[in-house]
Amino acid sequence: MDQQLVVYNSLSGKKEAFTPLVEGHVGIYVCGPTVYSNVHLGNCRTFISFDIIFRYLKYLGYKVRYVRNITDAGHLENDEDAGEDRISKRARLEQLEPMEVVQRYTVDFHNTLATFNTLPPSIEPTATGHIMEQIELIKTLVDKGMAYEVNGSVYFDVLKYNQHHQYGILSKRNIEDLIHNTRTLDGQIDKKNPQDFALWKKAEPQHIMRWPSPWGVGFPGWHLECTAMSTKYLGETFDIHGGGMDLKFPHHECEIAQATAIHQKAPVRYWLHANMLTLNGKKMAKSTGNNILPHELFSGENKLFSKAYSPEVVRFFMLQAHYRSIVDISEAALAAAEKGYQRLLEALTQLATLETAATNAFDFESWQARCHAAMNDDFNTPVLIAHLFDAAKAIKSAHNNQLDIDAATKEKLQKQLEVFIKEVLGLEMKLQHKKQSADDGLATATISLLLELRDQARLKRDFETADQIRDALLALNIQPNDGKDGTTFNIQ
Amino acid sequence: MDQQLVVYNSLSGKKEAFTPLVEGHVGIYVCGPTVYSNVHLGNCRTFISFDIIFRYLKYLGYKVRYVRNITDAGHLENDEDAGEDRISKRARLEQLEPMEVVQRYTVDFHNTLATFNTLPPSIEPTATGHIMEQIELIKTLVDKGMAYEVNGSVYFDVLKYNQHHQYGILSKRNIEDLIHNTRTLDGQIDKKNPQDFALWKKAEPQHIMRWPSPWGVGFPGWHLECTAMSTKYLGETFDIHGGGMDLKFPHHECEIAQATAIHQKAPVRYWLHANMLTLNGKKMAKSTGNNILPHELFSGENKLFSKAYSPEVVRFFMLQAHYRSIVDISEAALAAAEKGYQRLLEALTQLATLETAATNAFDFESWQARCHAAMNDDFNTPVLIAHLFDAAKAIKSAHNNQLDIDAATKEKLQKQLEVFIKEVLGLEMKLQHKKQSADDGLATATISLLLELRDQARLKRDFETADQIRDALLALNIQPNDGKDGTTFNIQ
Repeated sequence: MDQQLVVYNSLSGKKEAFTPLVEGHVGIYVCGPTVYSNVHLGNCRTFISFDIIFRYLKYLGYKVRYVRNITDAGHLENDEDAGEDRISKRARLEQLEPMEVVQRYTVDFHNTLATFNTLPPSIEPTATGHIMEQIELIKTLVDKGMAYEVNGSVYFDVLKYNQHHQYGILSKRNIEDLIHNTRTLDGQIDKKNPQDFALWKKAEPQHIMRWPSPWGVGFPGWHLECTAMSTKYLGETFDIHGGGMDLKFPHHECEIAQATAIHQKAPVRYWLHANMLTLNGKKMAKSTGNNILPHELFSGENKLFSKAYSPEVVRFFMLQAHYRSIVDISEAALAAAEKGYQRLLEALTQLATLETAATNAFDFESWQARCHAAMNDDFNTPVLIAHLFDAAKAIKSAHNNQLDIDAATKEKLQKQLEVFIKEVLGLEMKLQHKKQSADDGLATATISLLLELRDQARLKRDFETADQIRDALLALNIQPNDGKDGTTFNIQ
Repeated sequence: MDQQLVVYNSLSGKKEAFTPLVEGHVGIYVCGPTVYSNVHLGNCRTFISFDIIFRYLKYLGYKVRYVRNITDAGHLENDEDAGEDRISKRARLEQLEPMEVVQRYTVDFHNTLATFNTLPPSIEPTATGHIMEQIELIKTLVDKGMAYEVNGSVYFDVLKYNQHHQYGILSKRNIEDLIHNTRTLDGQIDKKNPQDFALWKKAEPQHIMRWPSPWGVGFPGWHLECTAMSTKYLGETFDIHGGGMDLKFPHHECEIAQATAIHQKAPVRYWLHANMLTLNGKKMAKSTGNNILPHELFSGENKLFSKAYSPEVVRFFMLQAHYRSIVDISEAALAAAEKGYQRLLEALTQLATLETAATNAFDFESWQARCHAAMNDDFNTPVLIAHLFDAAKAIKSAHNNQLDIDAATKEKLQKQLEVFIKEVLGLEMKLQHKKQSADDGLATATISLLLELRDQARLKRDFETADQIRDALLALNIQPNDGKDGTTFNIQ
């Protein structure tokens, strides 16, 4: 296609033409989960958003290296280096080894994302798997005078960095405001300035996750792992860094500062941030009960929704909003998405059996170009989906003999629709599949028997029984089609 | 239950009473896959064998910490420290970053084992996630004089170890024979003696996986990772170490030597080894074509089998042999297993609808004790399955009014059978589920309609049509049951 992919870069605050560092290749890093609890629906939305970006870049023909990490150490309760390590705390409360906590929630994370049909990333590195790389980076920062050791912990010197660089460049924060607004929390007494952040923390005797280092036994700070892993697998500067909007500050700001101080260049060319999910108009939070886990939504076993919604429908619902917009999940919205998605799949079924015309009134190329234009405009899935509905409408017209579609167009449309739905949007089309599978089994045999009995009744001029069978089948959404080669049926 | 669990300890070559180190708790370490290719069916058998052991220990009420590692670095082509690193080689051939190779085959491994319904282990640590722990252990071995550095690599001194300990204790090899039979391979010229093994290897410039160490940039040897991870998560001495029979030598032998040299005590109390899988009477090997991947077996898309076999049937087939016996997979064996498994599930369906008697002739307690005795005898699944078939036979007799089972016994039997099949043997009972699901859907509605038409025909004394419907239903294995409240049906 001729069009240029354009992405919204949080760093510049503008849409920019996307050109990768190395032609034909894209390196992308996305901050993964901290595996200390079951994955939230909001987290799922973030990873589904980047799954779309990964899929579309591959669709465009790029060889994509997609790195998404697992944070299995170092993420403290408070993002400003205070409180307990989240995983250690969970391990203490559940009387487990920290790595048992990590395993339990990593398995949950993988299972849930697989249910949503997201593709696995190319590399899925862990923080604990890169302690050595982090220590090497800290040594460099200390050598450069950009970090200082106090009492077995090492901190990044934000004020010093800010003398020659701009701390706050991504989140558009002003260093003076930051200094003014930063509180000093427990466990931060070692810091020169409260806005400094931890690269390495001394492990107190009760801290159960611990590694040796040049500064004594401790554990890494949260922010550094992403710099260590993105540098190792994507290089000192790479194309795209993604994550949830809430990670912009402090996490991504700290990543920029660390990496810039180490390599003397900006680490990331395009910063992409996915927006959040609200539930019934309010922020999701365990404490208020305004919260739902993915499996509760899929099973229907919850107090918020009257029925179960399949992962596929929930995914379709999320993609009906742009990744940079807030999405509110509610019963009405999910029910509407389910209906819409069903309608889209029905169009595909109608298209499959459509009798083509000699002439053609559906402009495939211009429709396809509009679809590509939508996705090239910062991965605008809602607009793509609107175009898919346009196609569905045209198919329905053709089905009702109100629009001509020729054989060549039908074939192109079938192929491209399936690619957009399955490959680009990552929807498995299981709803449709489930309906069609009735063709194979017991139902087919019994329906055929019923049609045979109906034919027999008609031959015997027992129209009462024949009509009874037809009406009962119609009530089951089974449409008998009387043709010259006997009666066939469609399941609607 | 009163009986004592007995396990075959490869170290003593005898069955021994199993008593864990800490009452109520079991620590178990199993060598996981080297993730450089798709998981073999033979590997699957090993992990299914240990899944049974994990499940049965939990069934007995133990709190089990089950550690199974992922080897993502350090495993060379030749187990005697020669050749290329398996993952690096694959990465070079496929032009991927080594961690992309690791991710691809880790995902395949997890997906395949999940298909076989094995439980995830409690902790799944990686070799690259424990480089620091390995370096610490090597330092200890060098300090103790049990390892020596040559040209950036560090080797374990087998002869020195053997002065005070017995190298070969597990595999029953004699050190003199080992010295006599060990060849010197390429890349081993640094070793003092050819039977010494690598703890750390210098990374040549072309080697793409590399970490800093006190001996220069390099990568860990294969054997040490398991000692580092088992010590970290299970302690210096732990209960059970498992793995495939082929790992006894050199891998497990080296683990014993390293750990004993470091901690001055035996690392493992019970060594358990699972036997291999052959295909049509011969060893499975890619080179000869006598090979099949799990997904080829499940899809039926292969040249060796005439039809597809479900993961559940393959698992049942494997469990019909003891984990220490060789199993040969063949069409006849799989077909027999499928039939047998189906029969077992049918017995459960018969039991569910069984009309109970006032008297009872099935001795549940003695049957249950025999089942436990089988599993307590070194996890003897084939004998357990034979007892399950005994129960199936009794159920069939009861179904045919040849044996009395009272309500209390029926309930106990139902519960215990389901626990043995689902929880202990890890069989999902999907085959049965598939049949029963016809009850819910379209088939139920159409069958009911057919029965209604049959009743109408009989009222009209149109016996021809009534018999036609009955015969057609019977041909579909649907049994109409005429009762006082109308006609119901069973799907056989």
